[in-house]
Amino acid sequence: MTNRDECVALDARDPLAALRDDFVLREGEIYLDGNSLGPVSKGTQRRVREVIDHEWGEGLIRSWNSANWMDAPIELGNRLAPLIGAREGEVLVADTLTFLLAKIIGGSLELRPDRHVVITDAVNFHSDLYIVAAMARLAGRDIIVKTIDRDTLVDYLDDDVALVMFTHVDFRTGEMLDMAGITAAVHAVGALMLWDLAHSTGAVPLDVTSANIDFAAGCGYKYLNGGPGAPGFMYVAPRWQGVLRNPLPGWLGHARPFDFEPTYESAPGMRAYVTSSPSVLALGALDGALEVFERTTMTEVRVKSLALTDLFISLVEEALPGVFDVVTPREHTLRGSQVALRHEQGYGIVQALIERGVIGDFRAPDICRFGLTPLYLRYVDVYDAVQILVDVMMSSAHLDERFIVRLAVT
Amino acid sequence: MTNRDECVALDARDPLAALRDDFVLREGEIYLDGNSLGPVSKGTQRRVREVIDHEWGEGLIRSWNSANWMDAPIELGNRLAPLIGAREGEVLVADTLTFLLAKIIGGSLELRPDRHVVITDAVNFHSDLYIVAAMARLAGRDIIVKTIDRDTLVDYLDDDVALVMFTHVDFRTGEMLDMAGITAAVHAVGALMLWDLAHSTGAVPLDVTSANIDFAAGCGYKYLNGGPGAPGFMYVAPRWQGVLRNPLPGWLGHARPFDFEPTYESAPGMRAYVTSSPSVLALGALDGALEVFERTTMTEVRVKSLALTDLFISLVEEALPGVFDVVTPREHTLRGSQVALRHEQGYGIVQALIERGVIGDFRAPDICRFGLTPLYLRYVDVYDAVQILVDVMMSSAHLDERFIVRLAVT
Repeated sequence: MTNRDECVALDARDPLAALRDDFVLREGEIYLDGNSLGPVSKGTQRRVREVIDHEWGEGLIRSWNSANWMDAPIELGNRLAPLIGAREGEVLVADTLTFLLAKIIGGSLELRPDRHVVITDAVNFHSDLYIVAAMARLAGRDIIVKTIDRDTLVDYLDDDVALVMFTHVDFRTGEMLDMAGITAAVHAVGALMLWDLAHSTGAVPLDVTSANIDFAAGCGYKYLNGGPGAPGFMYVAPRWQGVLRNPLPGWLGHARPFDFEPTYESAPGMRAYVTSSPSVLALGALDGALEVFERTTMTEVRVKSLALTDLFISLVEEALPGVFDVVTPREHTLRGSQVALRHEQGYGIVQALIERGVIGDFRAPDICRFGLTPLYLRYVDVYDAVQILVDVMMSSAHLDERFIVRLAVT
Repeated sequence: MTNRDECVALDARDPLAALRDDFVLREGEIYLDGNSLGPVSKGTQRRVREVIDHEWGEGLIRSWNSANWMDAPIELGNRLAPLIGAREGEVLVADTLTFLLAKIIGGSLELRPDRHVVITDAVNFHSDLYIVAAMARLAGRDIIVKTIDRDTLVDYLDDDVALVMFTHVDFRTGEMLDMAGITAAVHAVGALMLWDLAHSTGAVPLDVTSANIDFAAGCGYKYLNGGPGAPGFMYVAPRWQGVLRNPLPGWLGHARPFDFEPTYESAPGMRAYVTSSPSVLALGALDGALEVFERTTMTEVRVKSLALTDLFISLVEEALPGVFDVVTPREHTLRGSQVALRHEQGYGIVQALIERGVIGDFRAPDICRFGLTPLYLRYVDVYDAVQILVDVMMSSAHLDERFIVRLAVT
């Protein structure tokens, strides 16, 4: 079993160690919930101050041009693009994930006018399920949404499928899907592929270009650390730009927004998918948060992410054998950057951990979820978190008596 | 003609004078564009700092409960409600104006399933025109959008009209419409009435309750000073809550968001119209900006607004007789809180004013637009702005020679 000194040594030679200083973290707290809401970065603090005091405060209305607020959704998309393996002009930052999915789903259904089926994962994030049902209803023709067991996808693929929408890393279990393989299978029947990258972006290396996907969308507040309710992003493969229509258009996506034309004419490129301006403060917060990613690579992040999740799993299994069902796959190619532990008393366990300064979260009915984020987490944090978990399992008032673990403490 | 000393005296006895200190304004600049983007307030600076450093920075994920981020769109709606004459639980702050209009239009068309016509104003803000056309297309049945001369509305009202959408104060001319009268006429044929309050909220007293309107939406970045791309707001009359469906649903509008149910079931009240979380930073910025309105009343604001616009018009007409066509109505009941001057060289005039520190804006083809915002503008600012306008008209390099005004300077 890895001991604490070994973790200290791992931290000492961690190439990402210096990045922790970019974040505002509380002394005595171990934050394992960056997969739900990333912490404040110094880049964010600086950029938001700059937006408020300088761009908005001094520039006022002029900053639409002088600070280039007009292009901010596109420019920020370009900054984010390398994190998903996209190129300049393929990513837009705006709105929230649900609205971006709405635009892509609505537009996609028009691209396959003779097909009637949309497939999604029955255990997809529920907002994805609601918006796909809503956009199917708004399609103005009979669309059937099939929510399936994702492992049985091939059984459902035929030439009546218009679109498949999956989430790349499962928000509960942390299982990562085979983006390229699934996309190829979907394309083989002439359907379109939309990936929700909410739990992938900034967490695992992504290459939407080589995976040849059609569309993607994700959010800015998890591993990207853009702040609560941060704008989302969307990706449209170059072959679909100018082809995929924005079903929810607005003036900022018009070819000539300041000509005030009564009829909508789409701007070229990703700008077509802008409806109206997202909060410039919120864009600034995300912009500042992305700086830290430019001081590392997703390959480096991935190496440490797997090391942290491996460490967490092995420490839990060694210290608390048989107590938890480790839901997250052991196989690296199937794992995101979180560890999910199933336990009947999951809710109480997470509450007890939070009281002792280990911040994870609970997902009904029985998942304790721990996001392990390499930019600011140390190996020693993982070690300490597991020790506290052991302590909780041996003594917590939050646990039903029959679940208390009795270990021989050495 | 009012002289500068008289303006100084008016400022000395202005009951709103102290509110100017709540804003961050640049020395030597006169900001007449608060109808497009309001300035930074000290309330906003304070609240955004609090959200970043305390709520997000320290509370992290816990702030969804401890800082009540979950209820922020509703709570902020309650804070805004008195500005439009609405009551608690009738206003929501979220998304942007265009998305909120999309939700209302989409939902409204379902409430009048046997009617085929939506009426809007041909000179409405163009984003309103685009989204009404888009939502008509998504209705899944034949809907005709008629963009009419608003003064001829009665000619178009019949029992095939489902919805009328007008903007209460015209963004170009500043003309204010008769909310109660038009709403009554629309209701008389059984149609629904949606008001865009973008140029009204925080600018003129509003009473959506006594006007008996069905729906309204507006934006947070103009007279409310919520910052660039600030979230918008929507109002749903109590009689339609639980009846108007949200056609673009998301997990935060679910009756039980944390039960992760696969099927959408709408929350009661205004929460039904939340899709996903708006930026909490952006909500904070608007929240801080609304504080100043609690130190005055819209009646007081209106008295000063009319005094400022009257002063501006009279000074321009006296100093530059016949030079401009004053497009904004003289009659107080028909005037918002801006003055629009038509001039063939409008673009150059506005550029010249901006260079000399008077910030207005230009709306094609020929409107010079000046927002007169009582919370931070002084009478003497109006006086000085007009003097600078006179100076520009007599000498500017931005003007074609034949438009230069030659006055006998006394």
